[in-house]
Amino acid sequence: MRVFSGSKFGVDVEEVVLPNGKRKRVEKVTHPGSVVIMANFEGKIVLEKQFRPVIGKWIFELPAGTIDEGESPEQAAIRELREETGLVSSDLKKLLDFYPSPGISNEIMHVFLANNCEKGDQALEDYEVIELVPLEREQILSMIREGKIEDGKTIASLLYFFYMSESLQ
Amino acid sequence: MRVFSGSKFGVDVEEVVLPNGKRKRVEKVTHPGSVVIMANFEGKIVLEKQFRPVIGKWIFELPAGTIDEGESPEQAAIRELREETGLVSSDLKKLLDFYPSPGISNEIMHVFLANNCEKGDQALEDYEVIELVPLEREQILSMIREGKIEDGKTIASLLYFFYMSESLQ
Repeated sequence: MRVFSGSKFGVDVEEVVLPNGKRKRVEKVTHPGSVVIMANFEGKIVLEKQFRPVIGKWIFELPAGTIDEGESPEQAAIRELREETGLVSSDLKKLLDFYPSPGISNEIMHVFLANNCEKGDQALEDYEVIELVPLEREQILSMIREGKIEDGKTIASLLYFFYMSESLQ
Repeated sequence: MRVFSGSKFGVDVEEVVLPNGKRKRVEKVTHPGSVVIMANFEGKIVLEKQFRPVIGKWIFELPAGTIDEGESPEQAAIRELREETGLVSSDLKKLLDFYPSPGISNEIMHVFLANNCEKGDQALEDYEVIELVPLEREQILSMIREGKIEDGKTIASLLYFFYMSESLQ
Protein backbone atom coordinates (compact mmCIF):
# COMPACT_ATOMS: atom_id res chain seq x y z
CA MET A 1 0.00 0.00 0.00
CA ARG A 2 1.36 3.39 -1.00
CA VAL A 3 1.38 5.67 2.06
CA PHE A 4 3.46 8.60 0.72
CA SER A 5 4.35 9.88 -2.75
CA GLY A 6 7.04 12.54 -2.78
CA SER A 7 9.15 14.10 -5.48
CA LYS A 8 12.33 12.27 -4.39
CA PHE A 9 10.94 9.02 -2.97
CA GLY A 10 7.77 7.17 -2.01
CA VAL A 11 6.87 5.02 0.98
CA ASP A 12 5.10 1.69 0.67
CA VAL A 13 3.91 -0.65 3.41
CA GLU A 14 3.65 -4.28 2.35
CA GLU A 15 3.28 -7.70 3.90
CA VAL A 16 5.96 -10.09 2.66
CA VAL A 17 6.74 -13.77 3.18
CA LEU A 18 10.29 -14.34 4.42
CA PRO A 19 12.52 -17.29 3.38
CA ASN A 20 11.71 -18.91 6.76
CA GLY A 21 7.98 -18.81 5.96
CA LYS A 22 7.14 -16.08 8.48
CA ARG A 23 5.15 -13.08 7.34
CA LYS A 24 6.38 -9.57 8.01
CA ARG A 25 5.01 -6.06 7.58
CA VAL A 26 7.66 -4.13 5.69
CA GLU A 27 7.98 -0.34 5.54
CA LYS A 28 9.89 0.56 2.43
CA VAL A 29 11.31 3.77 0.99
CA THR A 30 10.82 3.33 -2.76
CA HIS A 31 13.49 5.10 -4.80
CA PRO A 32 14.38 5.05 -8.54
CA GLY A 33 18.10 4.62 -7.87
CA SER A 34 20.95 7.06 -8.13
CA VAL A 35 24.42 7.62 -9.56
CA VAL A 36 27.69 8.72 -8.00
CA ILE A 37 30.49 10.14 -10.15
CA MET A 38 34.19 10.17 -9.43
CA ALA A 39 35.43 12.79 -11.88
CA ASN A 40 39.12 12.82 -12.74
CA PHE A 41 39.86 16.42 -13.70
CA GLU A 42 43.54 17.16 -14.34
CA GLY A 43 44.60 14.37 -11.98
CA LYS A 44 42.37 15.43 -9.11
CA ILE A 45 39.06 14.04 -7.91
CA VAL A 46 36.23 16.60 -7.79
CA LEU A 47 34.39 16.72 -4.48
CA GLU A 48 31.48 19.02 -3.67
CA LYS A 49 30.91 20.90 -0.46
CA GLN A 50 27.14 20.83 -0.37
CA PHE A 51 24.49 22.06 2.03
CA ARG A 52 22.11 19.20 2.87
CA PRO A 53 18.87 20.53 4.37
CA VAL A 54 17.83 17.05 5.57
CA ILE A 55 20.75 16.96 8.03
CA GLY A 56 21.08 20.75 8.31
CA LYS A 57 24.75 20.94 7.46
CA TRP A 58 27.45 21.28 4.82
CA ILE A 59 29.17 18.04 3.91
CA PHE A 60 31.72 16.87 1.36
CA GLU A 61 30.30 14.51 -1.23
CA LEU A 62 31.07 13.14 -4.64
CA PRO A 63 28.73 14.49 -7.34
CA ALA A 64 25.58 12.37 -7.28
CA GLY A 65 21.93 12.43 -8.16
CA THR A 66 18.74 10.54 -8.81
CA ILE A 67 18.17 8.65 -12.07
CA ASP A 68 15.37 10.28 -14.08
CA GLU A 69 12.56 8.22 -15.60
CA GLY A 70 13.68 6.55 -18.82
CA GLU A 71 17.36 7.27 -18.18
CA SER A 72 20.10 4.64 -17.97
CA PRO A 73 22.56 4.94 -15.08
CA GLU A 74 25.26 6.03 -17.59
CA GLN A 75 23.03 8.79 -18.98
CA ALA A 76 22.19 9.98 -15.48
CA ALA A 77 25.88 10.05 -14.54
CA ILE A 78 26.78 12.18 -17.58
CA ARG A 79 23.85 14.55 -16.90
CA GLU A 80 24.48 14.92 -13.16
CA LEU A 81 28.20 15.47 -13.68
CA ARG A 82 27.54 18.26 -16.16
CA GLU A 83 24.76 19.89 -14.10
CA GLU A 84 26.58 19.84 -10.77
CA THR A 85 30.19 20.44 -11.82
CA GLY A 86 30.10 21.69 -15.40
CA LEU A 87 32.42 18.85 -16.39
CA VAL A 88 31.96 16.79 -19.52
CA SER A 89 33.39 13.30 -20.00
CA SER A 90 32.91 10.75 -22.74
CA ASP A 91 35.06 8.19 -20.92
CA LEU A 92 32.81 6.65 -18.27
CA LYS A 93 33.62 3.42 -16.48
CA LYS A 94 31.40 1.57 -13.98
CA LEU A 95 33.19 0.98 -10.68
CA LEU A 96 30.65 -0.62 -8.33
CA ASP A 97 27.02 -0.72 -7.21
CA PHE A 98 25.71 -0.75 -3.67
CA TYR A 99 22.62 -0.30 -1.54
CA PRO A 100 23.12 2.64 0.86
CA SER A 101 20.34 1.61 3.23
CA PRO A 102 18.93 -1.86 2.40
CA GLY A 103 17.09 -2.17 5.72
CA ILE A 104 14.63 0.58 4.80
CA SER A 105 15.17 1.63 1.17
CA ASN A 106 15.42 -0.11 -2.20
CA GLU A 107 17.69 2.65 -3.53
CA ILE A 108 20.69 1.34 -5.44
CA MET A 109 23.71 3.54 -6.18
CA HIS A 110 25.75 3.10 -9.36
CA VAL A 111 29.26 4.49 -9.05
CA PHE A 112 31.17 5.65 -12.14
CA LEU A 113 34.68 6.87 -12.83
CA ALA A 114 34.69 9.72 -15.37
CA ASN A 115 38.13 10.11 -16.94
CA ASN A 116 39.40 12.86 -19.27
CA CYS A 117 36.95 15.46 -17.99
CA GLU A 118 36.76 18.81 -19.73
CA LYS A 119 35.14 22.05 -18.61
CA GLY A 120 31.62 22.79 -19.81
CA ASP A 121 28.85 24.80 -18.14
CA GLN A 122 27.57 24.15 -14.62
CA ALA A 123 23.76 24.17 -14.44
CA LEU A 124 22.74 23.99 -10.79
CA GLU A 125 19.13 23.89 -9.72
CA ASP A 126 17.94 26.79 -7.59
CA TYR A 127 17.95 24.67 -4.48
CA GLU A 128 21.42 23.21 -4.95
CA VAL A 129 24.05 24.94 -2.83
CA ILE A 130 27.34 23.49 -3.97
CA GLU A 131 31.03 24.50 -4.00
CA LEU A 132 33.44 22.44 -6.09
CA VAL A 133 36.61 21.17 -4.39
CA PRO A 134 39.11 19.26 -6.58
CA LEU A 135 41.44 17.24 -4.34
CA GLU A 136 44.43 14.96 -4.64
CA ARG A 137 44.42 11.37 -3.42
CA GLU A 138 46.46 12.08 -0.29
CA GLN A 139 44.28 15.05 0.68
CA ILE A 140 41.16 12.91 0.32
CA LEU A 141 42.61 10.05 2.37
CA SER A 142 43.57 12.46 5.17
CA MET A 143 40.06 13.88 5.20
CA ILE A 144 38.52 10.40 5.45
CA ARG A 145 40.95 9.40 8.19
CA GLU A 146 40.17 12.59 10.16
CA GLY A 147 36.39 12.15 9.86
CA LYS A 148 35.97 15.19 7.61
CA ILE A 149 34.11 13.18 4.96
CA GLU A 150 30.86 12.08 6.57
CA ASP A 151 28.93 10.82 3.56
CA GLY A 152 28.71 7.04 3.32
CA LYS A 153 28.56 6.74 -0.49
CA THR A 154 31.56 9.05 -0.79
CA ILE A 155 33.66 7.07 1.71
CA ALA A 156 32.73 3.72 0.11
CA SER A 157 33.30 4.94 -3.47
CA LEU A 158 36.61 6.70 -2.82
CA LEU A 159 38.14 3.89 -0.77
CA TYR A 160 36.96 1.33 -3.34
CA PHE A 161 38.53 3.38 -6.11
CA PHE A 162 41.83 3.98 -4.32
CA TYR A 163 42.32 0.46 -2.97
CA MET A 164 40.16 -1.96 -4.98
CA SER A 165 40.56 -0.74 -8.57
CA GLU A 166 43.25 0.64 -10.87
CA SER A 167 44.48 4.11 -9.98
CA LEU A 168 43.92 7.30 -11.97
CA GLN A 169 44.94 7.30 -15.62
CA MET B 1 4.48 18.21 8.85
CA ARG B 2 4.53 14.53 9.72
CA VAL B 3 3.19 12.52 6.76
CA PHE B 4 4.13 8.98 7.86
CA SER B 5 4.97 7.36 11.20
CA GLY B 6 6.36 3.85 10.90
CA SER B 7 8.08 1.49 13.28
CA LYS B 8 11.52 1.95 11.65
CA PHE B 9 11.31 5.52 10.36
CA GLY B 10 9.02 8.50 9.86
CA VAL B 11 8.58 10.93 6.98
CA ASP B 12 8.35 14.67 7.45
CA VAL B 13 7.76 17.38 4.86
CA GLU B 14 9.13 20.79 5.85
CA GLU B 15 9.90 24.12 4.25
CA VAL B 16 13.46 25.22 4.99
CA VAL B 17 15.56 28.30 4.23
CA LEU B 18 18.80 27.47 2.42
CA PRO B 19 22.14 29.25 3.00
CA ASN B 20 21.52 31.17 -0.25
CA GLY B 21 18.23 32.53 1.12
CA LYS B 22 15.99 30.43 -1.14
CA ARG B 23 13.20 28.43 0.41
CA LYS B 24 12.80 24.75 -0.34
CA ARG B 25 10.25 22.05 0.39
CA VAL B 26 12.19 19.17 1.91
CA GLU B 27 11.00 15.55 2.12
CA LYS B 28 12.85 13.86 4.94
CA VAL B 29 13.09 10.32 6.23
CA THR B 30 13.43 10.79 10.00
CA HIS B 31 15.45 8.04 11.65
CA PRO B 32 16.86 7.62 15.20
CA GLY B 33 20.30 6.56 13.94
CA SER B 34 21.96 3.20 13.86
CA VAL B 35 25.08 1.26 14.74
CA VAL B 36 27.38 -0.99 12.72
CA ILE B 37 29.69 -3.47 14.44
CA MET B 38 32.90 -4.94 13.15
CA ALA B 39 33.37 -7.90 15.47
CA ASN B 40 36.85 -9.41 15.76
CA PHE B 41 36.23 -13.06 16.69
CA GLU B 42 39.37 -15.20 16.78
CA GLY B 43 41.08 -12.98 14.20
CA LYS B 44 38.17 -12.99 11.75
CA ILE B 45 35.53 -10.34 11.04
CA VAL B 46 31.97 -11.58 11.43
CA LEU B 47 29.72 -10.86 8.46
CA GLU B 48 26.06 -11.80 8.19
CA LYS B 49 24.30 -13.20 5.18
CA GLN B 50 20.91 -11.65 5.66
CA PHE B 51 17.63 -11.65 3.74
CA ARG B 52 16.48 -8.06 3.20
CA PRO B 53 12.78 -7.95 2.25
CA VAL B 54 13.03 -4.32 1.12
CA ILE B 55 15.33 -5.30 -1.78
CA GLY B 56 14.07 -8.91 -1.98
CA LYS B 57 17.46 -10.57 -1.70
CA TRP B 58 20.19 -12.01 0.50
CA ILE B 59 23.16 -9.75 1.03
CA PHE B 60 26.34 -9.76 3.10
CA GLU B 61 26.38 -7.12 5.82
CA LEU B 62 28.16 -6.27 9.02
CA PRO B 63 25.93 -6.67 12.07
CA ALA B 64 23.92 -3.48 12.45
CA GLY B 65 20.72 -2.12 13.90
CA THR B 66 18.69 0.85 14.98
CA ILE B 67 19.42 2.71 18.21
CA ASP B 68 16.57 2.26 20.70
CA GLU B 69 15.09 5.21 22.56
CA GLY B 70 17.26 6.20 25.51
CA GLU B 71 20.20 4.11 24.32
CA SER B 72 23.69 5.44 23.60
CA PRO B 73 25.34 4.28 20.37
CA GLU B 74 27.74 2.14 22.48
CA GLN B 75 24.85 0.44 24.31
CA ALA B 76 23.07 -0.20 20.99
CA ALA B 77 26.24 -1.70 19.49
CA ILE B 78 26.69 -4.10 22.43
CA ARG B 79 23.00 -5.09 22.29
CA GLU B 80 22.83 -5.57 18.51
CA LEU B 81 26.07 -7.57 18.46
CA ARG B 82 24.75 -9.93 21.11
CA GLU B 83 21.27 -10.27 19.56
CA GLU B 84 22.42 -10.83 15.98
CA THR B 85 25.61 -12.84 16.47
CA GLY B 86 25.58 -14.09 20.06
CA LEU B 87 28.97 -12.44 20.58
CA VAL B 88 29.85 -10.46 23.69
CA SER B 89 32.59 -7.84 23.82
CA SER B 90 33.61 -5.38 26.51
CA ASP B 91 36.28 -3.83 24.28
CA LEU B 92 34.43 -1.46 21.98
CA LYS B 93 36.17 1.27 20.00
CA LYS B 94 34.50 3.91 17.82
CA LEU B 95 35.85 3.86 14.26
CA LEU B 96 33.80 6.41 12.29
CA ASP B 97 30.37 7.97 11.74
CA PHE B 98 28.65 8.63 8.44
CA TYR B 99 25.34 9.51 6.83
CA PRO B 100 24.25 6.68 4.49
CA SER B 101 21.79 8.81 2.53
CA PRO B 102 22.00 12.53 3.47
CA GLY B 103 19.93 13.64 0.46
CA ILE B 104 16.78 12.06 1.85
CA SER B 105 17.41 10.76 5.38
CA ASN B 106 18.85 12.16 8.61
CA GLU B 107 20.02 8.67 9.66
CA ILE B 108 23.55 8.64 11.03
CA MET B 109 25.54 5.40 11.38
CA HIS B 110 28.05 4.90 14.18
CA VAL B 111 30.63 2.23 13.38
CA PHE B 112 32.39 0.32 16.16
CA LEU B 113 35.19 -2.22 16.33
CA ALA B 114 34.47 -4.91 18.93
CA ASN B 115 37.66 -6.67 19.96
CA ASN B 116 38.12 -9.78 22.14
CA CYS B 117 34.65 -11.14 21.35
CA GLU B 118 33.42 -14.20 23.22
CA LYS B 119 30.52 -16.50 22.48
CA GLY B 120 27.21 -15.83 24.22
CA ASP B 121 23.64 -16.53 23.08
CA GLN B 122 22.19 -15.30 19.80
CA ALA B 123 18.71 -13.80 20.21
CA LEU B 124 17.29 -13.13 16.77
CA GLU B 125 13.90 -11.57 16.28
CA ASP B 126 11.34 -13.69 14.45
CA TYR B 127 11.70 -11.64 11.30
CA GLU B 128 15.50 -11.71 11.18
CA VAL B 129 16.86 -14.27 8.73
CA ILE B 130 20.60 -14.29 9.29
CA GLU B 131 23.55 -16.67 8.78
CA LEU B 132 26.88 -15.80 10.39
CA VAL B 133 29.97 -15.83 8.17
CA PRO B 134 33.33 -15.13 9.89
CA LEU B 135 35.90 -14.13 7.24
CA GLU B 136 39.56 -13.24 7.02
CA ARG B 137 40.77 -9.90 5.69
CA GLU B 138 41.83 -11.25 2.30
CA GLN B 139 38.54 -13.08 1.77
CA ILE B 140 36.61 -9.90 2.54
CA LEU B 141 38.74 -7.76 0.21
CA SER B 142 38.22 -10.27 -2.64
CA MET B 143 34.46 -10.19 -2.08
CA ILE B 144 34.40 -6.38 -2.19
CA ARG B 145 36.59 -6.34 -5.31
CA GLU B 146 34.30 -8.88 -7.03
CA GLY B 147 31.09 -7.01 -6.16
CA LYS B 148 29.86 -9.71 -3.77
CA ILE B 149 29.39 -7.20 -0.94
CA GLU B 150 26.63 -4.85 -2.05
CA ASP B 151 25.87 -3.04 1.17
CA GLY B 152 27.21 0.52 1.32
CA LYS B 153 27.77 0.74 5.10
CA THR B 154 29.63 -2.59 5.00
CA ILE B 155 31.93 -1.52 2.14
CA ALA B 156 32.65 1.88 3.76
CA SER B 157 33.24 0.41 7.23
CA LEU B 158 35.44 -2.49 6.14
CA LEU B 159 37.62 -0.45 3.78
CA TYR B 160 37.97 2.27 6.42
CA PHE B 161 39.00 -0.33 8.98
CA PHE B 162 41.48 -2.12 6.71
CA TYR B 163 43.10 0.97 5.19
CA MET B 164 42.42 3.98 7.43
CA SER B 165 42.86 2.58 10.95
CA GLU B 166 45.10 0.15 12.83
CA SER B 167 44.69 -3.49 11.85
CA LEU B 168 43.26 -6.26 14.03
CA GLN B 169 44.81 -6.75 17.46
